[in-house]
Amino acid sequence: MSIRVTVWGENVHEQKNRIVAGLYPDGMHSTIATALNRDPGVTATTATLQEPDHGLTPERLAATDVLVWWGHAAHGDVQDAVVDRVCDAVWSGMGAIFLHSAHFAKPFKRLMGSPCNLTWREAGERERLWLTSRNHPIAAGLPDSFELEHEEMYGEPFGVPEPMETVFVSWFQGGEVFRSGLTYKRGAGNVFYFRPGHETYPTYHDSNVQRVILNAVKWAHNPATRIANPNAAPNVPVEVAPEPITERGPRLHQAGEEGFR
Amino acid sequence: MSIRVTVWGENVHEQKNRIVAGLYPDGMHSTIATALNRDPGVTATTATLQEPDHGLTPERLAATDVLVWWGHAAHGDVQDAVVDRVCDAVWSGMGAIFLHSAHFAKPFKRLMGSPCNLTWREAGERERLWLTSRNHPIAAGLPDSFELEHEEMYGEPFGVPEPMETVFVSWFQGGEVFRSGLTYKRGAGNVFYFRPGHETYPTYHDSNVQRVILNAVKWAHNPATRIANPNAAPNVPVEVAPEPITERGPRLHQAGEEGFR
Amino acid sequence: MSIRVTVWGENVHEQKNRIVAGLYPDGMHSTIATALNRDPGVTATTATLQEPDHGLTPERLAATDVLVWWGHAAHGDVQDAVVDRVCDAVWSGMGAIFLHSAHFAKPFKRLMGSPCNLTWREAGERERLWLTSRNHPIAAGLPDSFELEHEEMYGEPFGVPEPMETVFVSWFQGGEVFRSGLTYKRGAGNVFYFRPGHETYPTYHDSNVQRVILNAVKWAHNPATRIANPNAAPNVPVEVAPEPITERGPRLHQAGEEGFR
Amino acid sequence: MSIRVTVWGENVHEQKNRIVAGLYPDGMHSTIATALNRDPGVTATTATLQEPDHGLTPERLAATDVLVWWGHAAHGDVQDAVVDRVCDAVWSGMGAIFLHSAHFAKPFKRLMGSPCNLTWREAGERERLWLTSRNHPIAAGLPDSFELEHEEMYGEPFGVPEPMETVFVSWFQGGEVFRSGLTYKRGAGNVFYFRPGHETYPTYHDSNVQRVILNAVKWAHNPATRIANPNAAPNVPVEVAPEPITERGPRLHQAGEEGFR
Repeated sequence: MSIRVTVWGENVHEQKNRIVAGLYPDGMHSTIATALNRDPGVTATTATLQEPDHGLTPERLAATDVLVWWGHAAHGDVQDAVVDRVCDAVWSGMGAIFLHSAHFAKPFKRLMGSPCNLTWREAGERERLWLTSRNHPIAAGLPDSFELEHEEMYGEPFGVPEPMETVFVSWFQGGEVFRSGLTYKRGAGNVFYFRPGHETYPTYHDSNVQRVILNAVKWAHNPATRIANPNAAPNVPVEVAPEPITERGPRLHQAGEEGFR
Repeated sequence: MSIRVTVWGENVHEQKNRIVAGLYPDGMHSTIATALNRDPGVTATTATLQEPDHGLTPERLAATDVLVWWGHAAHGDVQDAVVDRVCDAVWSGMGAIFLHSAHFAKPFKRLMGSPCNLTWREAGERERLWLTSRNHPIAAGLPDSFELEHEEMYGEPFGVPEPMETVFVSWFQGGEVFRSGLTYKRGAGNVFYFRPGHETYPTYHDSNVQRVILNAVKWAHNPATRIANPNAAPNVPVEVAPEPITERGPRLHQAGEEGFR
Repeated sequence: MSIRVTVWGENVHEQKNRIVAGLYPDGMHSTIATALNRDPGVTATTATLQEPDHGLTPERLAATDVLVWWGHAAHGDVQDAVVDRVCDAVWSGMGAIFLHSAHFAKPFKRLMGSPCNLTWREAGERERLWLTSRNHPIAAGLPDSFELEHEEMYGEPFGVPEPMETVFVSWFQGGEVFRSGLTYKRGAGNVFYFRPGHETYPTYHDSNVQRVILNAVKWAHNPATRIANPNAAPNVPVEVAPEPITERGPRLHQAGEEGFR
Repeated sequence: MSIRVTVWGENVHEQKNRIVAGLYPDGMHSTIATALNRDPGVTATTATLQEPDHGLTPERLAATDVLVWWGHAAHGDVQDAVVDRVCDAVWSGMGAIFLHSAHFAKPFKRLMGSPCNLTWREAGERERLWLTSRNHPIAAGLPDSFELEHEEMYGEPFGVPEPMETVFVSWFQGGEVFRSGLTYKRGAGNVFYFRPGHETYPTYHDSNVQRVILNAVKWAHNPATRIANPNAAPNVPVEVAPEPITERGPRLHQAGEEGFR
């Protein structure tokens, strides 16, 4: 069975900016989904900010193995109810890949628990991404480094928690560096942040970038059955404790009662 | 200069429940603060839910080196504006220690980015905490294990991100285990979660527990000057790039413009 | 193509101790290999201490995707040249799973860089292993906890580096706990330590234990081509630097020279 | 009481190479020790390869809180017995800082358990080190980035285990990047790797580099009493198990017996 990917695009600059529209006439999300669909093991569709529920209904998320997210100008327009839903889906086992300016997307910030800030410069400078580990599945088929001739600069310090693994580090022509490929787990969900992808450059047409996203989709896919309620905090009554015990001492809760939240 | 600690207590069960009031007549927060104040290097005060701003005004947080948080029945009553303020303070360098049922406190969940759920049983059973690492400063002066004769059980899986370090693991009489001392960094702030402390037991009168909290305060204290704006994402114009570069290609932002959020 | 597993067994107690021989008449390694071979995606064979090169020639290791290691009485008899060879294979991408008393095996200690010590008791007590994360591939198909009625106790502190992930934590009847499933990466190789398996108990006949080992084999398998020389430290001459630079200042090495080791 | 630091220097190129001797007439180790001794909280002395036991007798290591290590041409001349002794000291709580070409020093490789390889180029190019985290004690008092006008290049992939924290990332003029400040724990010892310091450049006269080493000394210092035997794996007899248990089932070891190694 193929991996079901939903590529979420903000779809704002593609509509408003001539340069972006020229590079991505059907939207960045479509370009990314089309590239993913070249792999027989992946079925990628798209969703955008402008759709009801931003295209991310509970049913849609339940049928999504990996969510790819690109946003920039309209982070603030994403409804909090959808953000909650996305986080719940990740915690229940959906993979999530956040691209470039999605470092400030609401669901990414919520999953990181940190400022997610950085320094930046839009000068079309050269970026070179280096692998730190040749064995990582997200680096499969890639050379030790690859270049993007024109990119926006993102610089350290990058305000994210120490990752599980730093997979890529970027060199920028203007003198900065950036940890540009980072893995995390949140609940049952695998999360990957990947830096490149400023909308005024043809980054998502680059074959190495496409390969990273495809590799990341496969890495993030968790074939285990989704957890029904990732927030459940069940009481384990004395009678079913793994070892026989007798209740002792004072008590706040009554039998069968829910815990406080 | 001493470490300035604010011990935040929800202060609900101490007012409503006879058993809790008997154990902690001045509130759990006062018991914890009093124990901390025995160390000449610490100045601990308290704040509670019932105060304006829950006692956590911007000025108070700015003058707090380490915040200790205990909450349970009234997690939902904590105002979101105060939660934001606490997270900003942590990101700017304030240490934060979350105790027991604060696993579901709003600021802890925000800092973790994960469900923070667990299993539980209130049966007054025995808990034994084991060090995993004798060298950790939070374990200073402690034996390899210590017991709490009566505690609430918290069981794995514990829905938190993989920590920087697992400092303690708990054994429970009823057959469960729990990673009960976990370190994290979020922005410039050190964060520690410590499991024990159900309100119907005298846990915060225990000398080993008091020592862990004192050690954790010293560990969490970051003497560096607080970061003025932990969310800043400054533009680095071409003219001040570390290496001389020339702007190339198309551009979305105008000079001096703020980035999108 | 199936995953090629070599199960390495010390094969000492099976020959000398009546109880162990009774439980594992063909050796523990054979029991483990037989269980793995039930999966159509795995081809498991065995190797033992007594064979030339302990059965681990360069050719054998080159044809091994994942090495499973059990040793106890004869750690000291393993030749250092074979230890070097095993570490090189791991660094080049071979997966490695170390079982139970292999915490003191030479290759495990070399890969960890730490004492790998622990406390222990041989009393046939009950062990219960708890998952810390339901999503981990090594936990696929397992309940949140499972029991081994008779096991040797291993207790914390366990002298290993903080792992990438703590997958299992064990509860022991006698009051101890242990981080009993730990993941690491070393070079291009995935490494997993799994605690259960004292030779006087039927642990490797247990279906949950067999499933963990099978899951771990699949997790540890790195399908990428093995790195030819995992210790290479190539010089990158000025002429082929990614960015054009001119050599400046004094110099120790001559062009084309090897670095020091 | 001040932190007792031993700065170990290979002291080979300072004797044989005119350029190195000119930059460091008393040896690189002396330059580093002199800089550390400017801090009233530190007492730094030196030891070299040429001394008996390389200057690292058991008594000397027992009286060393933090060991700083620089080696390059003569890694292979370091006696294995001294390497064992250094690792034992680290595991028992001594801090250790490895500088530059010490990535291939025997004790560093043993503590890492990985190849520790990298790419390199000796062209006197510019290196710029960036902080990834402003809060880390090793970054105290440093700007977000600082430059070394002439340095040897070290490039990724760097064959070390994923660190506890990546504190610095280097940018090189020739187009490479490197994770140049990495923290680890091994046993009770804190370990820091810091990249700069090629012997033909005046790197250890740089005030930012001196500050990093001083900060790292303070970070690595573990004030806890050294562990007497960091390799001990004590038996816990049934009679002293934390919970009362009865011995059951077959048994390999006799009471009071040592475990196998």
